[in-house]
Parts: sequence; C-alpha cells; structure tokens
Amino acid sequence: MGGDLAPKMVVRGANIARKRHPDVKFLFYGVEDQIKPLLDKHKTLRSISEIRPAETVITADEKPSQALRGGRKSSMRLAIDAVSGGEAVCAVSAGNTGALMAMAKFVLKTMPGIDRPAIASFFPTLRGESVMLDLGANIQCDAQNLAQFAIMGDVFARTVLGTVRPSVGLLNVGSEDLKGSDTLREAASILREASLINFHGFIEGDDIAGGTVDVVVTDGFSGNIALKTAEGTARLYTEFLRRAFKHSLITQLGYVFARPALNKLKSRVDPRRYNGAMFLGLNGICVKSHGGTDAKGFANAIGVAIDMYGHGFLGKIREELEALQEPQGAVATAAESV
Amino acid sequence: MGGDLAPKMVVRGANIARKRHPDVKFLFYGVEDQIKPLLDKHKTLRSISEIRPAETVITADEKPSQALRGGRKSSMRLAIDAVSGGEAVCAVSAGNTGALMAMAKFVLKTMPGIDRPAIASFFPTLRGESVMLDLGANIQCDAQNLAQFAIMGDVFARTVLGTVRPSVGLLNVGSEDLKGSDTLREAASILREASLINFHGFIEGDDIAGGTVDVVVTDGFSGNIALKTAEGTARLYTEFLRRAFKHSLITQLGYVFARPALNKLKSRVDPRRYNGAMFLGLNGICVKSHGGTDAKGFANAIGVAIDMYGHGFLGKIREELEALQEPQGAVATAAESV
Repeated sequence: MGGDLAPKMVVRGANIARKRHPDVKFLFYGVEDQIKPLLDKHKTLRSISEIRPAETVITADEKPSQALRGGRKSSMRLAIDAVSGGEAVCAVSAGNTGALMAMAKFVLKTMPGIDRPAIASFFPTLRGESVMLDLGANIQCDAQNLAQFAIMGDVFARTVLGTVRPSVGLLNVGSEDLKGSDTLREAASILREASLINFHGFIEGDDIAGGTVDVVVTDGFSGNIALKTAEGTARLYTEFLRRAFKHSLITQLGYVFARPALNKLKSRVDPRRYNGAMFLGLNGICVKSHGGTDAKGFANAIGVAIDMYGHGFLGKIREELEALQEPQGAVATAAESV
Repeated sequence: MGGDLAPKMVVRGANIARKRHPDVKFLFYGVEDQIKPLLDKHKTLRSISEIRPAETVITADEKPSQALRGGRKSSMRLAIDAVSGGEAVCAVSAGNTGALMAMAKFVLKTMPGIDRPAIASFFPTLRGESVMLDLGANIQCDAQNLAQFAIMGDVFARTVLGTVRPSVGLLNVGSEDLKGSDTLREAASILREASLINFHGFIEGDDIAGGTVDVVVTDGFSGNIALKTAEGTARLYTEFLRRAFKHSLITQLGYVFARPALNKLKSRVDPRRYNGAMFLGLNGICVKSHGGTDAKGFANAIGVAIDMYGHGFLGKIREELEALQEPQGAVATAAESV
C-alpha cells in the first residue's frame, strides 16, 4: 500500500518481476478491495499470488515510534511478520522508510555481532557499480558501527555482486589519514588493524561516482546527503541537456539525430534501474523501494530482494559474523567490549 | 604559485580577467624567475602588474599548522598580508586550501559576531544559481556557527548576487522539523526565532541542484561531501553521454548533428564557470581557486573576488553584524553569551 502510485504500481511491478523470476510467489498485504480488481487484470500473476487483508495502512508521515506502537495490524507490519515467520523469504515496500526500518528492526532483530542495521543501495560509477551504506538509518554512528557496515558491505559485494575481494572506502572530506572526525579515524584504524577486508582508506565525495572503491561506508547523515545530492545533480544535468536541445531550430534538428544516443543515456541513468534499498544486518530480507517509482522501478526492487535471497546473503553474512566472534576477530571482540 | 598548472595558468588567468575588469591591477607573489618570463608575454598585463618575489612556496601537502608556522615568507602569506595591509583589495590563490584558510584566518581575523569563517561557492540549479556554505572549513559546527553561516550567506546573496530576500535552507536528511541532529534542530530554532532572514527550514540533498533555496547552509563535512558528490556525478553523466554517442555508427552520426546542443550543455556545466570559493566571515576578501583549473577557470575566480569587492560585501556584512549586536539581535546576543 506504500508509495505514491500504490497499490497499482505494486501489482504491476510484481507482474513484471514474475516474468523475470518465474519461480517466485507473491503475498500482497493491504486493502483487499483495492488489490483484488488490480490482480484480476493479470491472470498469471493472480494464480501465483495471495491477498492478505490488512486492517490498517501506515501513512507516509507517520513517525516510526507511532507506526511501531499502533501499526501491529498494518499491511507493512504483516509483510515483515511473514518474513519473520518463514512464510515469505523477503519483504518489499515502497512505504514510509522510517516506519519500515523500525518495524523490520523490531520484528527481525539485528544479527549477532551487528549493533545497528544499515540501508544500502547500488550506484552507477565510471567503472561499473558500487554499494553505499548507510543511507539514512543511523544519523549518528560510532567507529564500531562504521566498521560493522564495512563488513556487511564487503559480504554483500562478494555474495550478491560477485566482486572478488571488494575494496572498501570510508567517506571523508579528504583522503589523507589525518582528515575528518575522530570517529572516522578510529573506524579506519579498526579496519586497518583487523585486516578482514580489503580496506582502501578514506575516499571523497567524487570517488563515489568515480568508482574508486566497490563499497562506500558512511554514516546515515552523510550517506543520505550524498545519495540525494547525486540524484539532484543527475536531474539537473538531464534538464540542462533537454534545454540545450530545445534551444534553437538547429539544436532541435540535432535532437532527431541524437535520439538513439540520448535514449541509451536515458536508460543508463534511469533511477528505476537502481531502485531498491536493502536493509542489511537484520535476520531477514527487507527491501525499500523509492516511494515515487513506477511499476518498472518496483519490479527492480523486487529483483534486488530476490537476488539477496538467491545468493544466500543472510547465510553468508551469518557465517562471516560467527567467524568474527572467534578471539582473532578484532572488530566483533572490540564491539563486545564497548 | 599554487595549483597544478601554476604559475602559467595564474598569469594567463589574470590576462583574461584584466580584459573583463579593465580597472584592476595585479600583484604577483612568487618565484620571480618563473613569473617574469610569463608576464613578459603579455604586454598590457605586464604594464598593470608588479611581481613581488617570495622566498618560499606552500606545497599542496603541507599541513595548515606547518604552513602557518614556517610559511611567513611564502607567496601565499605575502598575498594575504597585502590584503591585510591595504595594498590589495583581495587575494586569489589556487594553492593548498587548508593552509590558505589558516593563514587568512590568522592574518585577516574573523569579523566581530562571527566565530568561524566559512567557505562558500556558487552552484548551478534548476532555477539559476545558489550559494552553499560551509564547504569544508569547519568539520564540526555548533548551532551558533550554522546560524552565523546563514546570516553570511544571506548577506552574500543580497549584495553579490542581488537576490531580493533570499531564502535560506539548512541541509538535513529530511524536511520535517524533527529530522536530523540536535545541532541542526537548535540552529533551525535560532533562525526561526531570530527572524532576521527568510528561513525556509530544512532541505535535503536533492534540493541543492533543485534550487529550492537561494542559500544552502551546512557544516563543512556535509558541505564538502555534497560538493564533491555533485562534481563526481556531473563527471559521470558527462562520461555516460560521451559513451552513448560513441556507441555505434548511428549514434556517432547523431553526434555530428547534436554538437551545437552538446556544446551548449558543456559550457553550461563547465566547472570553470563555478570556480572560485569565497572565504566568508573574515576582515578581507580571499578566494580559493580549484587547484586543477586552467587560465579560464582562474580568471573566473579572480572575477568572484572582484565582484565581492565591487559589491561592497565586506562593508555590508559588517553593517548587518553590527545591527545584530543590538539587543534585539538574537543570533549575535546568543553567540556572545555562549
């Protein structure tokens, strides 16, 4: 029921996703009267789906604490309960991010060795794709949180993206060792000493799109600002491009010939392509779709969740975290002693 | 002497700037043997310039404290001394940012009512241009610092950009009043209560390029990350555009016809156009050029400094700050009581 165009775009998104992932089955949580007529339009989807009526719906402006307390029978909560109960392998929602994270954290719980879950997403870069976390779940982070995000990002890049020995960078205002806050310097020294991952060191904002590292680690404040600044800049560039071609008769003629290339670019930078933010560090898979996306974007978010499940991300990260609990595992040991 | 292509691009940049600003005179601080032959190539520039030999040059990797202590006879320091001594109206450098800020702060001193200077720059937006500060001078800021940045940004937009009643936004991870850190919420309440400026409230990363406000206020950490993320994203977009046109014979043919529009876009997003970061809050004008820029970019940085001088920014901001010292000026009074 979440998102600007829900539940229509959710049902349509599922219909796109089921073609890409023929083994998948869907449970739709929400207002039955709204979902049923939509589902009836897609026969095949209908045959692999069940509607689970929910008494309430979490609204976009509800506070996380409010949603937690009052939303026990909401569609959002029931979907997460299904993951926790083993009825579903993942939950995907385009609703209220704060409420979704609070509920997922409360119901699914963080994994042993992880103090706080993080929101992660893919980014296009000059060299391919990178993962960045946290994108807004934790406004303030200590060095241990950042070190744990680094471990999660590393496992994610290896299992889901298939990157061999992914490089991990800490987002800072300079690449020199002395730059930034005490927290960042402490996190860097933990990661350097633990030598569990391929730690690149500090990176700067332009390294995100530059693809300097495979995994960008940052606190939720800076991560959210970087994510949205990048989105805004891409939108600005697209608009400048549009204006440039509208400028005169000559440029408008040029547009006709440039269209094949511009369409290529459009699909390359299509935000729907990167839709689907993953909640990492929980005992279950939960993916947040952009609220303003359409069916195509929502289908991609479903794909992200299915990929995490298919690549066995949860089992893999559990193994890694258990290995870290051994005496030689510096990060987890240090985390426990705090 | 600062910047990758100095001193050549500095002299050439001055030669471009003197055509745009016929009344200006230049003092070149640095290694005479390097500057003289360059200057001799430009007769007119030569006639309005003086070379001031400096014993040393601040290097790019020198720490600010080191530069402060050991750089008393450096070209950078002598240029700032010239502003402080009244011999020059502004200093422009493409050298080490940290060293330049430390020296400028030490020599020029902060204005009464301002605790910390900030680095500000222009940004292209969907609606025109905005100013953002701080871009990296202050990694950690308290609410009073942010409130003072807001005042400086407001005065800057009014005097230098000529914006009538500029709107000022605080960069945060959500636009709701409850979002973000205590510091941000406190800064917002100071600005709301003081009602000295047209305070818009919180904005998010995508509002920067969106042009939601005329002045974006943030701490130096987030500001630096936003600035560099935007730069990196623009570079990525440019590269994707280039690749799209290179893709096939058809797209390559399209490029020929699209060139007028693409050239328009190129000039619109040219980073040289926005070169020149201003140090605000000091008793003197100091502008930092990007180290990697060329003559055209350096000429723009000189133009920024001349504009600040021409619009009487220093006098105007001094007046505003004095008015704030009056009992009804909540920001300055609160700042004094801290």
